[in-house]
Amino acid sequence: QMPRGNLETVHHRSLVLAQLRSWLDSLRFRDAFECMRKLRINLNFLYDHNPKVFLENIRTFISELNSTANINLFLTELREEDTTSSMYPRPDGATVQTQPVAAPKKVDVVCDALRIAMETLDPNKYFLSILTSHVKKTVPELETALQKVHELRVKPPESPGSVGAEEALKYLLFLVNVNDLYEHSLGTYDFDLVLMVAEKSQKDPKEYLPFLNMLKSLEQNYQRYTIDRHLKRYRKALQHLSKCGDEHFPEALQLVREQKLYAEALRLYTADSPHYKALSCAYAEHLVEQHQAEQAGLLLWRCGELTGALQAFVSSSSWRNAVCVAQQIPLPPEHLALLARDLAAKLTEQRRHAEAAVLLDQYAKDCEEAILALITGACWEEALRLIHSHGRHDITETNLKPALLEAVGTQSAFLDARVATFTRHRARLAVVREQKAKARLDMLEEDGLDCPDAELYSEASSVLTASKYSHSNSRISSRSSKNRRKAERKKLSLKEGSPMEDRALVLALSELVTTVDKMREEVSSLLKALVLFQYQRQAEALQLAFQQALQSMEAAVPEVWPEGPQSARAPLTGPNSTANSITASFQQQQSPSASQQDADFLAPPKIRHCVKWRLSILT
Amino acid sequence: QMPRGNLETVHHRSLVLAQLRSWLDSLRFRDAFECMRKLRINLNFLYDHNPKVFLENIRTFISELNSTANINLFLTELREEDTTSSMYPRPDGATVQTQPVAAPKKVDVVCDALRIAMETLDPNKYFLSILTSHVKKTVPELETALQKVHELRVKPPESPGSVGAEEALKYLLFLVNVNDLYEHSLGTYDFDLVLMVAEKSQKDPKEYLPFLNMLKSLEQNYQRYTIDRHLKRYRKALQHLSKCGDEHFPEALQLVREQKLYAEALRLYTADSPHYKALSCAYAEHLVEQHQAEQAGLLLWRCGELTGALQAFVSSSSWRNAVCVAQQIPLPPEHLALLARDLAAKLTEQRRHAEAAVLLDQYAKDCEEAILALITGACWEEALRLIHSHGRHDITETNLKPALLEAVGTQSAFLDARVATFTRHRARLAVVREQKAKARLDMLEEDGLDCPDAELYSEASSVLTASKYSHSNSRISSRSSKNRRKAERKKLSLKEGSPMEDRALVLALSELVTTVDKMREEVSSLLKALVLFQYQRQAEALQLAFQQALQSMEAAVPEVWPEGPQSARAPLTGPNSTANSITASFQQQQSPSASQQDADFLAPPKIRHCVKWRLSILT
Repeated sequence: QMPRGNLETVHHRSLVLAQLRSWLDSLRFRDAFECMRKLRINLNFLYDHNPKVFLENIRTFISELNSTANINLFLTELREEDTTSSMYPRPDGATVQTQPVAAPKKVDVVCDALRIAMETLDPNKYFLSILTSHVKKTVPELETALQKVHELRVKPPESPGSVGAEEALKYLLFLVNVNDLYEHSLGTYDFDLVLMVAEKSQKDPKEYLPFLNMLKSLEQNYQRYTIDRHLKRYRKALQHLSKCGDEHFPEALQLVREQKLYAEALRLYTADSPHYKALSCAYAEHLVEQHQAEQAGLLLWRCGELTGALQAFVSSSSWRNAVCVAQQIPLPPEHLALLARDLAAKLTEQRRHAEAAVLLDQYAKDCEEAILALITGACWEEALRLIHSHGRHDITETNLKPALLEAVGTQSAFLDARVATFTRHRARLAVVREQKAKARLDMLEEDGLDCPDAELYSEASSVLTASKYSHSNSRISSRSSKNRRKAERKKLSLKEGSPMEDRALVLALSELVTTVDKMREEVSSLLKALVLFQYQRQAEALQLAFQQALQSMEAAVPEVWPEGPQSARAPLTGPNSTANSITASFQQQQSPSASQQDADFLAPPKIRHCVKWRLSILT
Repeated sequence: QMPRGNLETVHHRSLVLAQLRSWLDSLRFRDAFECMRKLRINLNFLYDHNPKVFLENIRTFISELNSTANINLFLTELREEDTTSSMYPRPDGATVQTQPVAAPKKVDVVCDALRIAMETLDPNKYFLSILTSHVKKTVPELETALQKVHELRVKPPESPGSVGAEEALKYLLFLVNVNDLYEHSLGTYDFDLVLMVAEKSQKDPKEYLPFLNMLKSLEQNYQRYTIDRHLKRYRKALQHLSKCGDEHFPEALQLVREQKLYAEALRLYTADSPHYKALSCAYAEHLVEQHQAEQAGLLLWRCGELTGALQAFVSSSSWRNAVCVAQQIPLPPEHLALLARDLAAKLTEQRRHAEAAVLLDQYAKDCEEAILALITGACWEEALRLIHSHGRHDITETNLKPALLEAVGTQSAFLDARVATFTRHRARLAVVREQKAKARLDMLEEDGLDCPDAELYSEASSVLTASKYSHSNSRISSRSSKNRRKAERKKLSLKEGSPMEDRALVLALSELVTTVDKMREEVSSLLKALVLFQYQRQAEALQLAFQQALQSMEAAVPEVWPEGPQSARAPLTGPNSTANSITASFQQQQSPSASQQDADFLAPPKIRHCVKWRLSILT
């Protein structure tokens, strides 16, 4: 028990808060304010207690506080934090309305509301509080504040008791760092204001006067550019510099390169000017360095820099644009042919055989190479089309038919290998799942098990020597979801006994299904070509093999990816289950490491039944 | 209690079975057999008790039974059923080894094993049992049995006590329906055998003799064809008919058409024969009727029927093959041009503009139409390529640029509409989910709830007037999974208050994401073309709109498709849960109607981050 004599100085906080709440509810802001100041209660509470009421009665609030000093005190103490959810929680435990993310910040809301009210009530009387409301915003509006001080100086108010410009500036310097204020005064391009601030700032006039005089001597746009550059406001600097005439363009170009302001710069010059072209070239150079040669090519072509554009398009394998530019230059036919061959070689490397063939046929005028490219790319129909349109039936015998037979062999071997791997993984998956299910069952049959450990046991039970694999997710939780997925995938190992072997197997099986399913188009076109050239036997064998592969994989889907996400890990309920055991089997299913990827892993791979590949004439 | 005097005639079954097992284990087959016959125990038990031991000691079994009659009795009583798992379960409850599906059938295994043993021991003595073993196979080998009887007749055995052909035939007729036997005897093409059976069959010679005499008068292949056709063995019939010479080809063709034996028929004739061509034409006709004109075209082209092939390829829009055939005919240039225009029109209808352009450019020699087709198809780069290669820069101004501007408008409007719908569906989904969660919570807070009803309540709670929607899955359970999914989807309605509105919304949202994601390529190529033609402002607006659309959809993914399949319907656990309430919330999640489609619905749509569409030169 407290010593009796001290009772009046001890204030029980909840009693005080209750009193404050009642005062605020009845709009007795002055009583509340005085009390809070005395008992050092955070002034934010004035607003936080009921923001809506506060904003609706802001004029009452101002007249209640009735002093610039009090209002300034309130403004300077404003913080984003909601005191009713941190320091002074509501007694009724009412849920706090969470603010939507995009809503304006509390500090800005209060500053703006107060300023508007004060400007309507009496801008002169509340002048210093108005300045404070500018300065305290989350992005301080120093220039506006300075501007207001400057206006005060130019046209002093007539009403008595008004603040003078001197006093206002002093107050600003008290609120804000002097160098910040000086820089911002420069940013208004108003030398009177700058001098005013500089004089109050106790800066050495020998330091700032020469600089200001130098600035004054400059043409207006170039002066503003110099100031912007000094303040590191490069975009504004570029805008002003662009108005300074042609002789300053090299400087502008330099600035653009240094600050990478290419896109902004292009907007400041007309498309037919030489500056635009120079800027485009500079931009293109930059883009090529950034490995975006195609976009560089577009810029160069657009401004008529054809040679540069051609180079950029070639290096980005943008072959259509490249040949357009080449014909616009125009390149002599023999050079065009060489270009086409170069591009075709690049495209062939990227397995874009059909496009390579267009180049070889139409620009290099070499139909034979074009046909060979198509044959290499297994574009059988298109190869045949060129053979017929160029009358090169000899190539059918020398190249097309042998290539068809080779393709059957390759596809069959590829298919066999995939099916064999699929069968192996599927069998192993059944074994691993059975082991895991058994381990989980064993674990859950022990009664009184502690839930949070359930998952741990389960993971551990699947492998005896799990120590070399890290299960911890804590380290990667802060990474992006993509990185996390990558990291998860890395941990998956197909090695027997690896802790997530089942997931690794499901993933591998899914990839195998997708790979084989992707063969539909290629197998279909190969089958048609085989039929056409009387390779009936080979076509029938390939069709049968592919059909069996698809069927066996499809038949495995219900087993590998059980219907519905829940059945994948069947929950353990039954006569022997307790609330705890059920909950444990649940939480285990919900463990983060399990759920993160479940969507990926539990969904069976898409099988494109819509792609019809089978020939009914092969039985 | 039984009357005492009857005790010796009552046999306790388990005692009997124990005795039988012990006899069988010590290979005392005769004792077992006699006992089983007397007590009418299913003779399959002789084998089922221990198949391995039975097969290993089959000679002992034969010598123990020591009579054709007994062996026949055993053979005729053979069934696929395993009596140790149905009638006479093992006393130790040992799990029965399940047979692999592909394993040969038990009846066939026993028949074959017994026959091989008997043929080695004494084929004459066991002749009738050997016949039985042929006839009792799952697919009765009547012809082999008949053949053996015939051999017996041609060369009667010398050993005394052997069965005669007459007796054997009588026995066969006792086992098998006489008409079946007659037909099968015909199938051996052995007239002696046919007559032998016919005579025994009490058939009227006036009926069968004229037919047999007619057959005898025919050339051998034609004779066999006639028999095969009579027996509805059409494939065999075709094979024999194909050997009958050219004059019978029309008959063969008729048979092929009637029985749709096209593929088989093509195998019987050489590819360079006129018959092969005629068959190909018939097959093609059939395929066209089956809407498989492309395959028909391949067959016709292969056999040199160019006009027909061209027609088939045109009707299947197989344009590459069509122009090849047209050039092979060869079609005069003006006809080729017309053909190309026809095909191009078809392809344009199918939105295959780039292919239409190839036809118009290279075969109709109309570059202007080709370029317009490409512009219509938004193939900007390819359009530009043709403009340059044909020097038609006028089209850039007249068509390309206006089309670009129109495309921006269309794409933007399309995008806006999708985003608006997405936002609306997303907001509604949040409402519906909250309602459902609340309803579920209310329902689970009532204690002592019966589990199977939980789902019912939950479904009902989401909508007050659910009566007009059918929830029953029972009627569609027998349909294929694809049909079921279709039916499920039909039941999904976006109408407010529909019972599966949440699912319908998720599905609609998924489709919207996929639609917008699919625009990446088209937007990217449009942006490039816009930049090239100085439509910077439009390009920037489109890029911004598309980026915002993608971002807003991606941002919604965690909300619409919560991570991990379980969290989609958070299970209800907590201090107030009971084992029953948890189990109920579980079973509800596992209800068939929920789980069937969860894989589809809970997996977020794929967003193809890999398709880079953004231009860094647009900011």
